[in-house]
Amino acid sequence: MPPISLLRAKDDAAKYGLDPEVLLKLKEKAMGARGVAYCPYSSFRVGCALLTADGDGTIITGANVECASTPVGICAERCALGKAKTEGYDKFAALAVATDISPPASPCGMCRQFIREFCDLNMPIFMYDKDGSCVVRTLEELLPMSFGPDDLKRGEVREEL
Amino acid sequence: MPPISLLRAKDDAAKYGLDPEVLLKLKEKAMGARGVAYCPYSSFRVGCALLTADGDGTIITGANVECASTPVGICAERCALGKAKTEGYDKFAALAVATDISPPASPCGMCRQFIREFCDLNMPIFMYDKDGSCVVRTLEELLPMSFGPDDLKRGEVREEL
Amino acid sequence: MPPISLLRAKDDAAKYGLDPEVLLKLKEKAMGARGVAYCPYSSFRVGCALLTADGDGTIITGANVECASTPVGICAERCALGKAKTEGYDKFAALAVATDISPPASPCGMCRQFIREFCDLNMPIFMYDKDGSCVVRTLEELLPMSFGPDDLKRGEVREEL
Amino acid sequence: MPPISLLRAKDDAAKYGLDPEVLLKLKEKAMGARGVAYCPYSSFRVGCALLTADGDGTIITGANVECASTPVGICAERCALGKAKTEGYDKFAALAVATDISPPASPCGMCRQFIREFCDLNMPIFMYDKDGSCVVRTLEELLPMSFGPDDLKRGEVREEL
Ligand SMILES: [Zn+2]
Ligand SMILES: [Zn+2]
Ligand SMILES: [Zn+2]
Ligand SMILES: [Zn+2]
Repeated sequence: MPPISLLRAKDDAAKYGLDPEVLLKLKEKAMGARGVAYCPYSSFRVGCALLTADGDGTIITGANVECASTPVGICAERCALGKAKTEGYDKFAALAVATDISPPASPCGMCRQFIREFCDLNMPIFMYDKDGSCVVRTLEELLPMSFGPDDLKRGEVREEL
Repeated sequence: MPPISLLRAKDDAAKYGLDPEVLLKLKEKAMGARGVAYCPYSSFRVGCALLTADGDGTIITGANVECASTPVGICAERCALGKAKTEGYDKFAALAVATDISPPASPCGMCRQFIREFCDLNMPIFMYDKDGSCVVRTLEELLPMSFGPDDLKRGEVREEL
Repeated sequence: MPPISLLRAKDDAAKYGLDPEVLLKLKEKAMGARGVAYCPYSSFRVGCALLTADGDGTIITGANVECASTPVGICAERCALGKAKTEGYDKFAALAVATDISPPASPCGMCRQFIREFCDLNMPIFMYDKDGSCVVRTLEELLPMSFGPDDLKRGEVREEL
Repeated sequence: MPPISLLRAKDDAAKYGLDPEVLLKLKEKAMGARGVAYCPYSSFRVGCALLTADGDGTIITGANVECASTPVGICAERCALGKAKTEGYDKFAALAVATDISPPASPCGMCRQFIREFCDLNMPIFMYDKDGSCVVRTLEELLPMSFGPDDLKRGEVREEL
C-alpha cells in the first residue's frame, strides 16, 4: 500500500489533472528549495517550485532572497517565476510553496499578482507546511477579481477616445 | 426623492455600517484623487480615499506615483495608507479606489497585502469605475487565506524550539 | 553666541542656498518623524522631512511603514515624496533623513531612485545620526550616472526608427 | 591583429583583474539576454549577465520581467542575482547590463542596492549600449555611502543599550 502522502497526492493530482508522481516531485523540490533561502532579516525561509508546461515538465525552483533595505528583496515565488520566464518557459501547470510553519503560509499578495501575470486563473497553488501537509487553492481563489494585463489595455482604449 | 447614487450609497453603507453621506464623500474624494496621479509611464490614473476610524472620520487620499524604474513606483492605495499611518491614524473603516476604466479596477495584490497589514479583514473596499459605478468587496474577499503579521510570529515560535 | 548646531546649520545652509533656521526646522522634523515609523519587523526607525519649494516652504514628513511581506513595505523617503506629490507639491529644495544609528544611514538605492524622479540632481540630502550629527551629499553624489525619466524617452526614439 | 572589441576588453579586463575572453563572453551573454526580456509595458529591454567567482566562472543571466501592476515587476539585475543566489552561488566577479539605447543605461537604484547586498564594493559593473559600446564603474562608484547589511546590525547594538 502506498504511503499516505502519495494517496493524498493522488487525490490532489487527479483534481487538477496532474500526475501524482510529478506532484510529489514538485512538493519535494519546493520543500528542498527552502534550503537555499537567503533570509537573514526575517529568518523566514520560503521555497518555491514551478511546474512548467511547455515541454517535458521541467521544474524550476526559487527561494526568498532578502536585502538590508527590505522592500528591495524578492520572494520565493517571484524568484522562481523570473527565473522560469528568462529561461524560456511560458506555460505553467502548478506552483508549490513551502515554509517552516503550520498551517502552511500562502503566497503574499505581491506574489499572487506576479503569478497572475503568467499563469491561468485555474492553475493550482500547493502550500506545504513544515511537515509537508498541504492546502491547495487555484490562483483565482487566492486573487479574486484580479487586475491583470487586459485591464491596462482597457485603459489604452480610453486614451484614444 | 434622492439621486440614484445616494440610494445606492444607502444600501452599500447600510451593509457595512457606514453613513451614506460619508460614503458619498469617500467616493468623491477617491474619484477626485485621480487628478493628482503622477503616471507618465502607464497613463493609468488611480485615486484612493481612506476613511479613518480613530476619531472624527477624517478621509486621507492618495494616488499612484510612478517612477522611470517602474518597480520603484507607489500605487494609490499604498500612498494613502503610508500617509495615514505616518499622520497618526491606526484604525480604518473603509477604502475606496477609482480608475478611468469600466468595470472598475481592483487593488493589485501588492496593495491588498499592504491593506491587510493595517485593516480588518471585513473592512469594505469600494471600487469605482470611470462613471462612478461601484463594486464592493471586503478585504478578506479580495485576499483570502492571507499571510499577515501573525504568521511571522508563528515563525518566531519555531525558532525558539 | 549661537549654539553649535545653528553654527553648523549656517555653514550647510549657506553651501546649498538654504536659510539656516529652515534647515534646523527640517532637521527637527526629520528626527521627530522617526516617532511615527511603523517598523515591527526591522525595529529600524527612519524619519524623513522634505522641504518643498513651490511656495511658502512647507515641510512634508514621512517615516518607514513596513509590512509582514517585507518587499511590500515603504521607506520613509518614498512615503514623504508620495505624500508631497499627491498633495500638489512639485518642487523640492532639500531632503533630510534621520535614523537611530551613528554615523548616519543614507537613503537606500530604491529611495535614491525615487528621489531622482522628482528632484534636481544638485538637491542636498541631509543625513542625521542618532544625536543629530549630520552628513550631507547632493542627490547626484548619492546616485551618480543615474537612470531617469529621460532615459525611457531615449528608448521611445529607438522604437520609432 | 585582434578586433577592436577585444582590445578594449583587454584594457577593461586588465583594470579589474578579469580574463578578456571571459569579459567578452559576459558582454555577449548580457546583450543576448535582452532577447528574453518580458517588457510589454515599458518596451524597454534589459539583459544582465553575472560572472560567478565560486568555482568555474559560470555566467548567470537575467532580464527584466514586468507586471501589469508595475511595482511588482523585477529588473534584469535582480532577476539574475536572485537566480544565482538560489542556485548556490555566493561570490561574484563582475556584472554586465545591456539595453537598446546609447549611451548605455545604468542599473536603477533599487538594483544597485540589491547588488550591494551580495557583491564587493569594488566589483566592476559593465554597461553596454545598443551597439556594444561600454561604460564601466565599480559598485561603490554607482552607490556611494551605501546602506548595507552591517548598518542593520548597528541598529541591533543600539537596541541592546
Ligand atoms: Zn511574496
Ligand atoms: Zn497596487
Ligand atoms: Zn529606501
Ligand atoms: Zn533595477
